Amino acid sequence: MAFESRIVRLIEFADTDMAGIMHFTGYYRYMEAAEHSLFRSQGLSVHGELNGQMVVWPRVHASCDFRAPLRFEDEVEIHVLVREKTAKSITCIHTFRKIQSPENIEVARGIMTLACAKLHNGQMESIPIPPQIDRLIEVAPATALDNR
Amino acid sequence: MAFESRIVRLIEFADTDMAGIMHFTGYYRYMEAAEHSLFRSQGLSVHGELNGQMVVWPRVHASCDFRAPLRFEDEVEIHVLVREKTAKSITCIHTFRKIQSPENIEVARGIMTLACAKLHNGQMESIPIPPQIDRLIEVAPATALDNR
Amino acid sequence: MAFESRIVRLIEFADTDMAGIMHFTGYYRYMEAAEHSLFRSQGLSVHGELNGQMVVWPRVHASCDFRAPLRFEDEVEIHVLVREKTAKSITCIHTFRKIQSPENIEVARGIMTLACAKLHNGQMESIPIPPQIDRLIEVAPATALDNR
Amino acid sequence: MAFESRIVRLIEFADTDMAGIMHFTGYYRYMEAAEHSLFRSQGLSVHGELNGQMVVWPRVHASCDFRAPLRFEDEVEIHVLVREKTAKSITCIHTFRKIQSPENIEVARGIMTLACAKLHNGQMESIPIPPQIDRLIEVAPATALDNR
Repeated sequence: MAFESRIVRLIEFADTDMAGIMHFTGYYRYMEAAEHSLFRSQGLSVHGELNGQMVVWPRVHASCDFRAPLRFEDEVEIHVLVREKTAKSITCIHTFRKIQSPENIEVARGIMTLACAKLHNGQMESIPIPPQIDRLIEVAPATALDNR
Repeated sequence: MAFESRIVRLIEFADTDMAGIMHFTGYYRYMEAAEHSLFRSQGLSVHGELNGQMVVWPRVHASCDFRAPLRFEDEVEIHVLVREKTAKSITCIHTFRKIQSPENIEVARGIMTLACAKLHNGQMESIPIPPQIDRLIEVAPATALDNR
Repeated sequence: MAFESRIVRLIEFADTDMAGIMHFTGYYRYMEAAEHSLFRSQGLSVHGELNGQMVVWPRVHASCDFRAPLRFEDEVEIHVLVREKTAKSITCIHTFRKIQSPENIEVARGIMTLACAKLHNGQMESIPIPPQIDRLIEVAPATALDNR
Repeated sequence: MAFESRIVRLIEFADTDMAGIMHFTGYYRYMEAAEHSLFRSQGLSVHGELNGQMVVWPRVHASCDFRAPLRFEDEVEIHVLVREKTAKSITCIHTFRKIQSPENIEVARGIMTLACAKLHNGQMESIPIPPQIDRLIEVAPATALDNR
């Protein structure tokens, strides 16, 4: 069981834009990677066969507040925490901290909601979270969430 | 003066992911392009020299709700509307409609807030919106916003 | 039948990098879009069902020479020309011209080879180009190729 | 001094396309990251101030042959080797090997040429490789190149 995961990344040149900072779309790719690492830590995939059907996790909501820029070769930690689960979706909070900055300053914070769906003949249909996944991905305890 | 802009795009193959739909980060690029078209319609750029300083518009917030998927070669209209202005920022609403679908169904809706900043020696600092820009980009009338 | 296609694009902010120019990966996305427009001009798709099988076109080679930079809001024309066909592949030449520059200067030139393949249960297998496609996409005449 | 570098990456969901494989543009981003790791291993950056000027490395050529697909969560090693240096440029070979596949099969091979340039007021101008860089990045010995 897990309710959180952490990944560390070095900002790539291809992430930057002409303002000299990471383009804002990069934060969303990193949040997605953090969620996938959470699943992987439990032996799960966000795109795989389960009980004879393809189970996938389209995003239904994603938001982010950008507080300070990230630059090429900055090292950043993305910490994902499960904030809420419904029968058919999971909502995560993501905190970006710039490593080696004073006090590892928080530079961005995001929220994403993933819906559980089955993929059949190219069509996606919302389904309840399968029990094998539901029992492995849990909501963070209040103490962990309060510190965010 | 303008408070809105519309762009139409054909979803590219490179926008898709292995679930067969546009990856969610693509929506943010399209919203950004819609905002730039709004500026361009007034002869403005989101990255240019003004009064002897480089004026840029970093995003401080971006969110999106994804209601129905977009697929390769779908035609989509992105309609951007200015919802709010403060002394130093502009907030826009973006509506994605799938063209040629029944009733041009709304497939996603996003909100982005851009802060006005000057860029000097690689550092960005928040500044009031310059008057030349302030007078050209206006808040949409209530009637336009009510219909969203 | 067609042996060429042209698309025009405005370089997007998201295409740029911290050197202030279009990141080199952007050229490949634009070449891909030009190839898709060639297919589309003939009522074909690069990803679709044909004779009861999914026909797709993975790239087996892609190269590009970058001669002059492209910048945000530059207008560029990408001209794709079919240079060669084999039983199972198509090779195209792509020329990038910066519009409104002196003499519409050529800023980049690329070559891409697409293999025809069928996609089944997630596996791709090389196949001969189906006749319905083969008769619509033709090799450019020598005179067109000589001018490149 | 160094003539090679290796990086290992897990293919991300955002790298994939609707054919279920890594989109071909992803290979170029990974090659770029491998080159940057080579520079970094010598305490160098591909974008930084040196002797009072901004030294940057625009690509003038990039090519890749794609031999077998990479999929979501595949682990891949990118090995970059310096093949050639001129007074003003560096050419690298990149080999992609899929880890945990039989014999770590080579799935792609690319070549990129970087030109040394100074960036001033947004303009790039080709310059000789500065001695501080030239002495740290060397051409691979023939034995290393023969094995490619």
